[in-house]
Amino acid sequence: MTTTVPGPTLGVVGGGQLGRMLAEAAAPLGVEVVVLDPTPDCPAAPVARDQIVGGFDDPEAIGRLAERTDALTYEIELADPDHLASASAEAGVPVHPTPETLRTIQDKFAEKEMLSEAGIPVPAYRRVDSVADLQAAVEEFGGVMLKAREGGYDGRGNVPVHAADEAADALREAVGTAEDPAALAETFVDFERELSVIGVQGDGEVRTFPVGENVHEAEILRETVVPARTSEAVAERAQAVARDVLDALDGRGVFGIELFETSEGEILVNEIAPRPHNSGHWSIEGAVTSQFEQHARAVLGWPLGSTRQRAPTVSANVLGTVEEPRPARLGNVERVLEREAAHLHWYGKDEVRPLRKMGHVTVTDETGGSEPTALLESTRELRDELGFQ
Amino acid sequence: MTTTVPGPTLGVVGGGQLGRMLAEAAAPLGVEVVVLDPTPDCPAAPVARDQIVGGFDDPEAIGRLAERTDALTYEIELADPDHLASASAEAGVPVHPTPETLRTIQDKFAEKEMLSEAGIPVPAYRRVDSVADLQAAVEEFGGVMLKAREGGYDGRGNVPVHAADEAADALREAVGTAEDPAALAETFVDFERELSVIGVQGDGEVRTFPVGENVHEAEILRETVVPARTSEAVAERAQAVARDVLDALDGRGVFGIELFETSEGEILVNEIAPRPHNSGHWSIEGAVTSQFEQHARAVLGWPLGSTRQRAPTVSANVLGTVEEPRPARLGNVERVLEREAAHLHWYGKDEVRPLRKMGHVTVTDETGGSEPTALLESTRELRDELGFQ
Repeated sequence: MTTTVPGPTLGVVGGGQLGRMLAEAAAPLGVEVVVLDPTPDCPAAPVARDQIVGGFDDPEAIGRLAERTDALTYEIELADPDHLASASAEAGVPVHPTPETLRTIQDKFAEKEMLSEAGIPVPAYRRVDSVADLQAAVEEFGGVMLKAREGGYDGRGNVPVHAADEAADALREAVGTAEDPAALAETFVDFERELSVIGVQGDGEVRTFPVGENVHEAEILRETVVPARTSEAVAERAQAVARDVLDALDGRGVFGIELFETSEGEILVNEIAPRPHNSGHWSIEGAVTSQFEQHARAVLGWPLGSTRQRAPTVSANVLGTVEEPRPARLGNVERVLEREAAHLHWYGKDEVRPLRKMGHVTVTDETGGSEPTALLESTRELRDELGFQ
Repeated sequence: MTTTVPGPTLGVVGGGQLGRMLAEAAAPLGVEVVVLDPTPDCPAAPVARDQIVGGFDDPEAIGRLAERTDALTYEIELADPDHLASASAEAGVPVHPTPETLRTIQDKFAEKEMLSEAGIPVPAYRRVDSVADLQAAVEEFGGVMLKAREGGYDGRGNVPVHAADEAADALREAVGTAEDPAALAETFVDFERELSVIGVQGDGEVRTFPVGENVHEAEILRETVVPARTSEAVAERAQAVARDVLDALDGRGVFGIELFETSEGEILVNEIAPRPHNSGHWSIEGAVTSQFEQHARAVLGWPLGSTRQRAPTVSANVLGTVEEPRPARLGNVERVLEREAAHLHWYGKDEVRPLRKMGHVTVTDETGGSEPTALLESTRELRDELGFQ
């Protein structure tokens, strides 16, 4: 194989911040990006070659995307796997990760089944097709986290259920109906911390980034600390589990693998994202090759880059700290600009909404002199100085 | 001052690789870039918000650029300083570095005069307005480098003159005429090595990057090694001279300051570029903040970033290794992709021409275990494996 530039054009379903950062990473490689997104002038649009305005499940728009690009991928799980598969076949261009993988991950129950069958440790779970199923699970586990099988993200569609008589209400909240619900119930995991491994599958090669530690609040990621503040043994176990997960998944690309470290030091897989993941944003400055560059390389079948960490790193999300939607204008940015080795990433969203992901701040410890906890705290303080005006 | 994002839009005269890398660096900061370039779909176009197609000296086009942006800059010395000044005044937007600085630097004699008056060491030089002037300089110095005062770059317009009877021919070659030529003659510098310092002037603050060592061949930059393989004393002297140069220059922005280290360990200023410079490309991966991000910050009056070096770094230009122009297609790119901590930068030029700058490769030494010379040689070999097909 001879890799040449200018390279193929990458077609990406979704043009949010992940598509934007993918386009930023692809440009130096001579790879152009066209995104498909329903929002005109979506976050990726200003840096991508072009945007097709259309829905993630619009077969005609996905077909047009396939026609004018050389390889297809997606940055959002709402991409329609069937339309991706047929557009790929019709235009004769590959799509990665495979639509089958996307389809499996879109259904949290199918995802858990796939992992279990591959011998990968996951929290105990039960399929919930009725109120009775949920009640049985609550009895069995003494309380569960109820999850809609499809469409949930950032904790949406997740409802804790502590008693059998809460089952019907919980289903209505999580899934929208208590009749023929498509859900699953998981035991509560007594976890010590939440970890993640960003992995990448290339053409016959697999690489993983160092283990990150994720701080969530109200089920939304706030900060990632890399390396994770855990033991070497746990980090190795997390890496091993992540490699097993990658082995079980089909198709090239980056995968964000969210893990629980239990109070006994065991690793359980929580969720998988078939795309670059919020907990991998640290890699832009913190690793030799960013997760976004890796995704572009992997989807194109190009050799993968080094996942070596360059410095201890914390990334902190800038969420919409507002009560009502309004035009986005973030102030006090000079605080970040002035800080040694702090990097601002603004996603270009016109409107700030409560808890919307608007950007992130990454700080690397170039001298290696900070305690990880101190780096986390100072980065959090720095991020908190930013404010929407 | 409160810095806010989305930030101002930056208008850039010139849309070559420097404009492209500037747009790549500006995007994460929430700064959009519009470029002005005569070549439709110029290298910066795919990553910039927009391109205005027009000449660098087209007052109407520069006026349109000023109207739709919040701050003006340029990535090419061919930008017209008078039109920049009037467009800036008319639209009420700042332009940096100042048109006066650009005007001075466009005229190599005026540049040398400005530096001399500021007490900055430069090679001995004489103004050449006639054949007789050049002959006198050749007699005085025993041979000179004749330079056109305006329009030369990458050694174009430079002609060595060893004997007085070569004067008329040399002027015709360098300036195009021996009658009323606008030229200057410089002594040949017996230099040990060529160095450069990338400096940046912000709003009341000045920073410099570590000293780079530049390897030229046929007056075109081939590789930059950072830190330079010189003594600490010489590096300190180079930094001090660079700071004096920055003090003597007006306006915010990045400046590329090319220096000679003489065989006696003295530092002489060769040339100044009022913009990000080829010898600063290493900073994208090798420094905490790249020269391109610094330029965006400086022009906008935002706080500057850290110029700390992250790892020993070599960047190597990918030049057009062809004899005739043809469509650009670079092969063997996998060699670069496979190498640990090697980074490809492709400039997106459709046509490869002899010695045209098509891209560059940067390699960082993440373990600090390589000798600089070994890193230079292995990077050069890596670059040489690439080939136009």
